[in-house]
Amino acid sequence: MTARAANTEVVLRWGSLADLPELLAHHAPAARYAVVSDSNVAPVHGQPVVERLAAAGQHADLFTIRAGEPHKTTAAWATLVEALAAEGLGRDGCVVAVGGGVTGDLAGFAAATYARGVAVVQVPTSLLAMVDASLGGKTGVDLAAGKNLVGAFHPPRLVLIDPQLLGTLPPDAMADGLAEAVKHGAIADTAYLDWIEANAEAVLAHDPAALHRLVTDSVRIKGGVVERDPEEAGERAVLNFGHTIGHAIEAATDYSVGHGSAVSLGMVAEAAIGEAVGVTEAGTGRRIQRALRACGLPIDHRPLPEPKTLLQAARTDKKNRGGAVRYVLLARLGVTVKSPDGGWAHPVPDDRVEEVLNGLRRVPGLAPHV
Amino acid sequence: MTARAANTEVVLRWGSLADLPELLAHHAPAARYAVVSDSNVAPVHGQPVVERLAAAGQHADLFTIRAGEPHKTTAAWATLVEALAAEGLGRDGCVVAVGGGVTGDLAGFAAATYARGVAVVQVPTSLLAMVDASLGGKTGVDLAAGKNLVGAFHPPRLVLIDPQLLGTLPPDAMADGLAEAVKHGAIADTAYLDWIEANAEAVLAHDPAALHRLVTDSVRIKGGVVERDPEEAGERAVLNFGHTIGHAIEAATDYSVGHGSAVSLGMVAEAAIGEAVGVTEAGTGRRIQRALRACGLPIDHRPLPEPKTLLQAARTDKKNRGGAVRYVLLARLGVTVKSPDGGWAHPVPDDRVEEVLNGLRRVPGLAPHV
Repeated sequence: MTARAANTEVVLRWGSLADLPELLAHHAPAARYAVVSDSNVAPVHGQPVVERLAAAGQHADLFTIRAGEPHKTTAAWATLVEALAAEGLGRDGCVVAVGGGVTGDLAGFAAATYARGVAVVQVPTSLLAMVDASLGGKTGVDLAAGKNLVGAFHPPRLVLIDPQLLGTLPPDAMADGLAEAVKHGAIADTAYLDWIEANAEAVLAHDPAALHRLVTDSVRIKGGVVERDPEEAGERAVLNFGHTIGHAIEAATDYSVGHGSAVSLGMVAEAAIGEAVGVTEAGTGRRIQRALRACGLPIDHRPLPEPKTLLQAARTDKKNRGGAVRYVLLARLGVTVKSPDGGWAHPVPDDRVEEVLNGLRRVPGLAPHV
Repeated sequence: MTARAANTEVVLRWGSLADLPELLAHHAPAARYAVVSDSNVAPVHGQPVVERLAAAGQHADLFTIRAGEPHKTTAAWATLVEALAAEGLGRDGCVVAVGGGVTGDLAGFAAATYARGVAVVQVPTSLLAMVDASLGGKTGVDLAAGKNLVGAFHPPRLVLIDPQLLGTLPPDAMADGLAEAVKHGAIADTAYLDWIEANAEAVLAHDPAALHRLVTDSVRIKGGVVERDPEEAGERAVLNFGHTIGHAIEAATDYSVGHGSAVSLGMVAEAAIGEAVGVTEAGTGRRIQRALRACGLPIDHRPLPEPKTLLQAARTDKKNRGGAVRYVLLARLGVTVKSPDGGWAHPVPDDRVEEVLNGLRRVPGLAPHV
């Protein structure tokens, strides 16, 4: 598959990494390439990419960053741009992010700001990055007060998605990506959600056909939303379904709950909120929970911090400054609905949300409802 | 005068600071205003602005940064965005930079990146910022390897220029602004250059009519260039006249030579380079030197670092990565000329430049030539 989303060329093909030198020459010609990988991915994929580019006669250097969301900081960004400068990268250079979401966000933000902007190419190596983070041009790093609080919109020239790279990905990292795939089904495509529930096992077993279908459908859904609204003026906000509470869970637990698990729990919560306020069709949350469980994702809110703590964290999110906390709500499975005030996210009073979250914490495992 | 440049409203009027609350409400309505000033300007202008906004019923907080180019760092940016987050600034907030070029660049970059971009308003308090830095949307901070190596294009909603604020500006800071004004005359308007030479004394004495004319003409020239080429795809490069060597002088002297002095010496050098390679009409450099001397700006290259050192510094500039160092050259006074390769800046071999710079160092004061 080759598609375009917001001026980005998306190449999605099993084994496509082998074509990176020619694809770069065509879609992102540059005097030199700065390949950025984290300390886990650099030996597995980063260094081989540099060697592949060198073998094709292209100038490429490897820049290794520290792995993990706790290192997606302003300091890590500063270290990276200083390293790019020390290496002499020019405006005619190109950053190639090879890795997961953290690498893509950090390397993308470095590219967005270095010399006031150089080209960036995303080569996602995690399922999460393939179905979500590498698409749409959001880049950034975290602040003490919350995730992604500084950043830039900087669409990549090229996103190269090679599902073959997932062969080395551990199951919990696969589950992270599946959470976003479930979200895509929940907000836009019921048939896709059903397919995920039925095929999650094959995806987790790295079945090539299942992986290809999953990535293709998610890229189609996310790419469509992003192309219609590249800078989140409106519709793009629907991609935040599950993320208001999801981000709050991450922040309130100091990121000890991974992104996929947090979004999974966030979707459970926000579906319940939608049902509680009468916006979402009853039973929608149970369907989403079933798909999440098939993917091995958590749905049990009992081990989480107090609702008040989560709401406090939600309030520091950049989307919720200076007003009521807002939530993307579904009308029913596959269909989001605008708020009565015309926004894509609904303001819901904290006390209603607290009630729902307390309810989720009283459930002895959510299984009985499923 | 009210003008628009690259989606920016420019209000230029003696005493206009008094109208800031209404101008903000009209051109940059926001839930709250983050007023950023440096430690020198905060007590003189920053705090009064916050009080003026508060008196008009607007929510405003003061953020004080450390004064001076050595503090225009990635660390200072990180400290500022963390402070904005801690104060709870939302996407519906607006940054108001009250100060000189360093404040405008740093606060502008914070606004460009905070929550992936919030509105910014520039209230320049130095002549340099009024005639140059506040216009055109360039924001950024310095890296160890060079000035402004990271940043973003982020046009302000409003630039409020009140020449009355210059009453407190010391003479050397006035000279900094005059260097850019001379540049505007040199690249675009001979009559303006003549006027500067004749009226520099009145400007330095803060004569209101002279200040108003100076700021108005510079804003007209720079605003015109920036409006035609907001992201420096082409023509905007002419504003770099004097800046290739100027930035090199700043970097090679660890910024002990101020920006205005460095640009003054840079224009002397680049006019001489243009004459030496036969692109610039003979005598052009002498006319520029005469205007610079009238403004009290330095033209003597003898105290500067070795030419080789300057060229090495020039090579680390983001505009000169990966190729020959380039210079904006004049055809004659008031007229720039494109390079034979179609670029707005001319590649000149290092050995030719070194020869010219060595020549300037042999001159016992440049006065005899003037």
